[in-house]
Amino acid sequence: MKKNKKVNAAILIIGNEILSGRTQEKNVAFISKWLNSKCGIAVDEVRIIPDLEKIIISNILNMSKKYNYVFTTGGIGPTHDDITAQSISKAFKVNYEFQKEAYSILEKYYGKNKFNSGRRKMAKMPKGAKLIYNPSSAAPGFVIKNVLSLPGVPSILNSMIENCKPYLIKGSEIYSNTLNVFTVESNISKPLGIIQKKYKKFVEIGSYPFFRLGRIGVSLVSRSTSKSKLKKVNQDLIKLAQRKKIKILKT
Amino acid sequence: MKKNKKVNAAILIIGNEILSGRTQEKNVAFISKWLNSKCGIAVDEVRIIPDLEKIIISNILNMSKKYNYVFTTGGIGPTHDDITAQSISKAFKVNYEFQKEAYSILEKYYGKNKFNSGRRKMAKMPKGAKLIYNPSSAAPGFVIKNVLSLPGVPSILNSMIENCKPYLIKGSEIYSNTLNVFTVESNISKPLGIIQKKYKKFVEIGSYPFFRLGRIGVSLVSRSTSKSKLKKVNQDLIKLAQRKKIKILKT
Repeated sequence: MKKNKKVNAAILIIGNEILSGRTQEKNVAFISKWLNSKCGIAVDEVRIIPDLEKIIISNILNMSKKYNYVFTTGGIGPTHDDITAQSISKAFKVNYEFQKEAYSILEKYYGKNKFNSGRRKMAKMPKGAKLIYNPSSAAPGFVIKNVLSLPGVPSILNSMIENCKPYLIKGSEIYSNTLNVFTVESNISKPLGIIQKKYKKFVEIGSYPFFRLGRIGVSLVSRSTSKSKLKKVNQDLIKLAQRKKIKILKT
Repeated sequence: MKKNKKVNAAILIIGNEILSGRTQEKNVAFISKWLNSKCGIAVDEVRIIPDLEKIIISNILNMSKKYNYVFTTGGIGPTHDDITAQSISKAFKVNYEFQKEAYSILEKYYGKNKFNSGRRKMAKMPKGAKLIYNPSSAAPGFVIKNVLSLPGVPSILNSMIENCKPYLIKGSEIYSNTLNVFTVESNISKPLGIIQKKYKKFVEIGSYPFFRLGRIGVSLVSRSTSKSKLKKVNQDLIKLAQRKKIKILKT
């Protein structure tokens, strides 16, 4: 049952500041690497959308149907443009209300006297939500159905990611192997295509140009749930490099 | 006619290496800022998808209907995983064939003897495509209908972006103003929400926490096509800071 079981996820980045280019997006690579290496979960799609209720709702409904898990980032803070929790409540047609545990965590963190309306807002979540604890700034993320909502600030998100684990089913581990060769893509594209074709069902080979130490090269990245197939592909790639007299970068 | 005319765009990032987290995405911020500042075009959605034909086709069809322009990045190189041009051809039901001008540019660049099949592949485009010239590595991008296809390598994409301009209709200029204040979001969320409500139709106010010089602050970013409305919002925000005795960061 566990073998080759594919579990996938999508990431929904909510925030005008990313769309406008004001802020460089940094959470996709972090979440994706973590899901891959720690949970055997592959990210199959990412969307970046504005802080607009209607758009958040339609994307949540569409993506939560299509993927095993949907991670949202952004829009769970105290200001008027933080509308992720209330939009997800509407999407799933559940009440948007105080989550008792979140309320008491935040009340304790700020102190009763300083627990103003903006701070209280961060305890409002879709009815039935469970918490993703936040060790760095208290305000928790939440899980409802297969949607996990995290904040947008990378340092805070990074501190919370391990707390998502209890809510995830593990997939088959995805192995990857990189071979860096000093050539240009167009010199190896044909034989590389033949190798990809040969292992089509089991291994996915990507080809990415790089510039390093003043020289041009290509990173050949193979990914598979089968270690043995990955090894065979690597042998074929090394043979290809030798045949073409291409130098391999030792790492 | 020109006033308040909204022109929008979407970006479709094609590439497994971005989804897996292997490569940090960098083109969204660059394209978005350029479209905003040089063309008055707002990016309303971004999607990151894998190198899979079926998925590229469905996204191209969906997004080209929804937005004035769709920019794609990635998948126009010489290797087997570069399938953007043929997928867009299928999406629009046109032939995938050699574009004469691209063919002669590439043949001249590589020289007749070294113009192998991988390199020739980069001259294949949807029938009817026009070129986006590439001053750094010759291989051109292309435009078909309202879709503009660019390469994924940021340095090459950056060198080509000005050559997209002839294909774009300019929208109303979008102005933005940033006020940095030394406070936490939850201290100003309520009055900030009131200001946003007051200018709802004209100005979009975003609130983004920052850490600078060892102190916590909030960047209040207002965006509008109306300079005068933007000025009024800024005055209201300064008054709010003064009322709350919050220091403003001089820039």
